[in-house]
Amino acid sequence: MILIPVRTKLIKKGDDLTSVILSSLRKNGLKLKDKDILLIASKVASIAEGRTVKLKDVTASLKAKEIAKEVDLDEKQVELILMHAEKIYGKVHKALLTLKNGFLIANAGIDKSNCKPDEVVLWPSNPQDSAEKIRKEIFKRTKKRVGIVIVDSRTAPLRWGTIGLALGFSGFHPIKDYRFKKDIFGNTFQITLQNLIDDLACAAHLLMGEAKEKTPIVLARDVPVKFSSKINVNSVFIPPDKCLYMKVLNENFKQASSLSS
Amino acid sequence: MILIPVRTKLIKKGDDLTSVILSSLRKNGLKLKDKDILLIASKVASIAEGRTVKLKDVTASLKAKEIAKEVDLDEKQVELILMHAEKIYGKVHKALLTLKNGFLIANAGIDKSNCKPDEVVLWPSNPQDSAEKIRKEIFKRTKKRVGIVIVDSRTAPLRWGTIGLALGFSGFHPIKDYRFKKDIFGNTFQITLQNLIDDLACAAHLLMGEAKEKTPIVLARDVPVKFSSKINVNSVFIPPDKCLYMKVLNENFKQASSLSS
Repeated sequence: MILIPVRTKLIKKGDDLTSVILSSLRKNGLKLKDKDILLIASKVASIAEGRTVKLKDVTASLKAKEIAKEVDLDEKQVELILMHAEKIYGKVHKALLTLKNGFLIANAGIDKSNCKPDEVVLWPSNPQDSAEKIRKEIFKRTKKRVGIVIVDSRTAPLRWGTIGLALGFSGFHPIKDYRFKKDIFGNTFQITLQNLIDDLACAAHLLMGEAKEKTPIVLARDVPVKFSSKINVNSVFIPPDKCLYMKVLNENFKQASSLSS
Repeated sequence: MILIPVRTKLIKKGDDLTSVILSSLRKNGLKLKDKDILLIASKVASIAEGRTVKLKDVTASLKAKEIAKEVDLDEKQVELILMHAEKIYGKVHKALLTLKNGFLIANAGIDKSNCKPDEVVLWPSNPQDSAEKIRKEIFKRTKKRVGIVIVDSRTAPLRWGTIGLALGFSGFHPIKDYRFKKDIFGNTFQITLQNLIDDLACAAHLLMGEAKEKTPIVLARDVPVKFSSKINVNSVFIPPDKCLYMKVLNENFKQASSLSS
């Protein structure tokens, strides 16, 4: 498996991301092949889609001000987090633990880095659609059948730092199902699934960096996934009542409700 | 960045893992270079170190029997989980959410796949030491300065399937610190760290597979990390009071105590 970071120009609102990707590949001397996977930083997908908010247009509520003081975040950013989060589970310095579009993520995915100093960036409005559109557009223009992943970062329990997360994807199966298959000793797997899409998002995240690397695209080649244009997009979300973490977190939901209402 | 899965023989108790790695690289036509990183499935490190338990040697307590029935796991396996977990936070079908060696992990890392049907596999007793020893032994035998990662799998909140996790590592810095650096627009990062080691473990996990692939070693080349033989091994663990997830989970600790006592 090969992963190649692709440098791009600075991406602006209204840019056609497919054009940027294809011209950046050319400038980096790369030629797209069938079954390549293009991983795209969610930040640039958001910016191209115009998903930025000017902080001067936001009025912080009393509640946002209180939380902002407690966690040491900009009060207008907190107001936006309160507006965009479906639930808030807790908070630490600089971060609220939120539920957003089915993801458990810090600050509803709203971020202040790599955008103009007076702005924040929201997630793409529908990262799944963004991935799907780019895949189809690339096929239209190049006739190559590729996979697309929109990559954001998240943190994990008890570990410092961010790892990758697949916000949206298109063109291949995100999960490898081992259930009812045999292991080396002939034992039958009962519950094992492998999350290929988040593993791959992490691999790309390692190369994208978080600062001014300007490599928001990663080309991945020879990735052991099954390509298909018809994918159940929800197959990567575990229902909360089956999730090892959410069962415990949801017991604290009374507190969450009182925070987010 | 290139990642190459390396097929090995079936690894048995008492095998010298360094010898297995070096001979498997040779058989796969691969030559080790300085700054290569070798990622090793924790399962084979455990097996080589003899960290398996025969289930017939375990007696399940009443409590283990009750939990086993509730979550549909082998009662002797549950007994071992109760013995090895430092805390138990909750449970779902087939899994307990446990704290083990500073990791939040399912079933205290105790697993029944890819071992003899009447056995379970524990984590290596000290994965950090295992990584360190293999790195030094490889340098002794080949004079190559490589990095080592012991890779296990974990699940993440609200996502199906397993992703990679670095249980132990040696030879390079696991975290990239962006604090006080500037982004593209000159904004200064205040809290951003990137967890390179877990990102890399995920990349390798994607290639190792979970069943009978028999590729428990992955050779990674051109990985953008800083090599050093002197690493603070604890630098990847966030203290629970600073962890976005643990603050909420610890509020449920009363229940956890009553479960694990």
